[in-house]
Amino acid sequence: MSRWAEGGFVAVDWGSTARRAYLIDGDGRVVDQMEDDAGTLVTPRDRFPGEVAALRARFGSKPLLMAGMVGSNRGWQETPYVPCPASLDALAQGLLWVEPGQVAIVPGLSLLDGDRSDVMRGEEVQVFGIAALEARTDAMICHPGTHSKWIELAGGAVTGFRTVMTGELFALLRGHSILADLLAGKATAGPAFADGVERGMAGAVIGAELFGVRAGVLLGRRDAADAPSLVSGLLIGSDLRAGLASIDAGRDILVVGRGSLTALYATAFTIRGHPCREIDGATALVAGMNALAATIA
Amino acid sequence: MSRWAEGGFVAVDWGSTARRAYLIDGDGRVVDQMEDDAGTLVTPRDRFPGEVAALRARFGSKPLLMAGMVGSNRGWQETPYVPCPASLDALAQGLLWVEPGQVAIVPGLSLLDGDRSDVMRGEEVQVFGIAALEARTDAMICHPGTHSKWIELAGGAVTGFRTVMTGELFALLRGHSILADLLAGKATAGPAFADGVERGMAGAVIGAELFGVRAGVLLGRRDAADAPSLVSGLLIGSDLRAGLASIDAGRDILVVGRGSLTALYATAFTIRGHPCREIDGATALVAGMNALAATIA
Repeated sequence: MSRWAEGGFVAVDWGSTARRAYLIDGDGRVVDQMEDDAGTLVTPRDRFPGEVAALRARFGSKPLLMAGMVGSNRGWQETPYVPCPASLDALAQGLLWVEPGQVAIVPGLSLLDGDRSDVMRGEEVQVFGIAALEARTDAMICHPGTHSKWIELAGGAVTGFRTVMTGELFALLRGHSILADLLAGKATAGPAFADGVERGMAGAVIGAELFGVRAGVLLGRRDAADAPSLVSGLLIGSDLRAGLASIDAGRDILVVGRGSLTALYATAFTIRGHPCREIDGATALVAGMNALAATIA
Repeated sequence: MSRWAEGGFVAVDWGSTARRAYLIDGDGRVVDQMEDDAGTLVTPRDRFPGEVAALRARFGSKPLLMAGMVGSNRGWQETPYVPCPASLDALAQGLLWVEPGQVAIVPGLSLLDGDRSDVMRGEEVQVFGIAALEARTDAMICHPGTHSKWIELAGGAVTGFRTVMTGELFALLRGHSILADLLAGKATAGPAFADGVERGMAGAVIGAELFGVRAGVLLGRRDAADAPSLVSGLLIGSDLRAGLASIDAGRDILVVGRGSLTALYATAFTIRGHPCREIDGATALVAGMNALAATIA
């Protein structure tokens, strides 16, 4: 434990639509926490100093470490990406100190792999948290969400990753498409979900499958109540097709995130016959923030 | 020419967002026309009688034949689908006479093929128009749009078709996604479009490719101005992958629709090395309406 972390600190996961903050004591344990909808999308740039001051006041004026879209060009202060391969030390060296020694933003990671480009902000903390929690230097991690991430940790560094905008596509379809009225309900891991996963993994053209869902309901061949599960399965199956393309079939995947989402992905992995294990996203985040805090002198 | 058509009639292509009407004389020629945004989505059910009366008054109180979403459950009067295989005669027998002998709605087509369901409303008129224009009973037709259709005409009947919601996905991304600001411009058939088409046809996972466009711009590897063409290419390439899956490589495709859209598809077919020919959508519609009118006693 570094002297910086000895007195405890505040860790913030500040995404585009949600904000979660944890007060962590000198032993690395969460002793208080809060969550709200004050994401970066609804926080104008000039409101961040006040928001951070309020968070620190609430949690006892501790130093504060934050990760996620707060460091993007649409957040508070743009924090340059650390290029892959990226170690925990490289991430720590890339911290942007908004207030020296007291308030810092964790950089995201960037990848240039041949003609492929990719970026992340926030998930990198959970990756190093998993490394710390499990005392391992190699792992294949799936982080489902608005922008799902497939992340390879090798030799203690993030060596590559791939983003699939699965959650965003589902939200677009539910919010604004011809399928909107069919997608109001909740996706569950039953037969319709499994059907969708199989089709998505087999490489079906999503734009064709989606229209087929609507036509099937119109013609009485599909139950309208199955549509959310079927569409969720299609998109998650397609996500797995992208993420598993270059992964050995026997290699276990760690699925990190909220339980409601990791459970759907775990079902999809089971359908595929691919081993996986779920890890709580908040636990991984706190472990990653502790690992980062330990590097600060 | 039937007695019904001898005195001329009004043909209306009434879609969800646009309405096009043609006054056709006793020789089957267009002598007047209009187009506006009074699609079915903005026309409440009880306003259709007045709209139709106004159209007929404008064009000289001729009989009126209309096709498209006007016959859907969100249009004026729901007109039951004619199941495939569907001939021109079957379509004519399925006309819904709103006012006997004077005002009719053309039915759409439905397909049940194994576990696959599909529907269309409007494109069927253009298919029979192409059959008449080209004096052929067999053709493979691509009708790009909000919901692109791939339609097989065999022995004078529509024997199968497949819908891909290509245009709708592009509109969702442009209107509401994280790519919205990158997609404001116009897609053109240059190198970025070709790159997208190749990726889409190769079966790339669209949700991964789309995020890569944004990351490429963020990291300076992609020109932001290329994004509309690249994304259009990705979606059209994916559309071709679905549509051409079961089509012989040497078989020519007739691409029917608005010239700005058929030109992009023609470029994509050329990249694929697949022969195609463009046909003007309005010309095909009028020919199809004439063919239908000729069956009415």
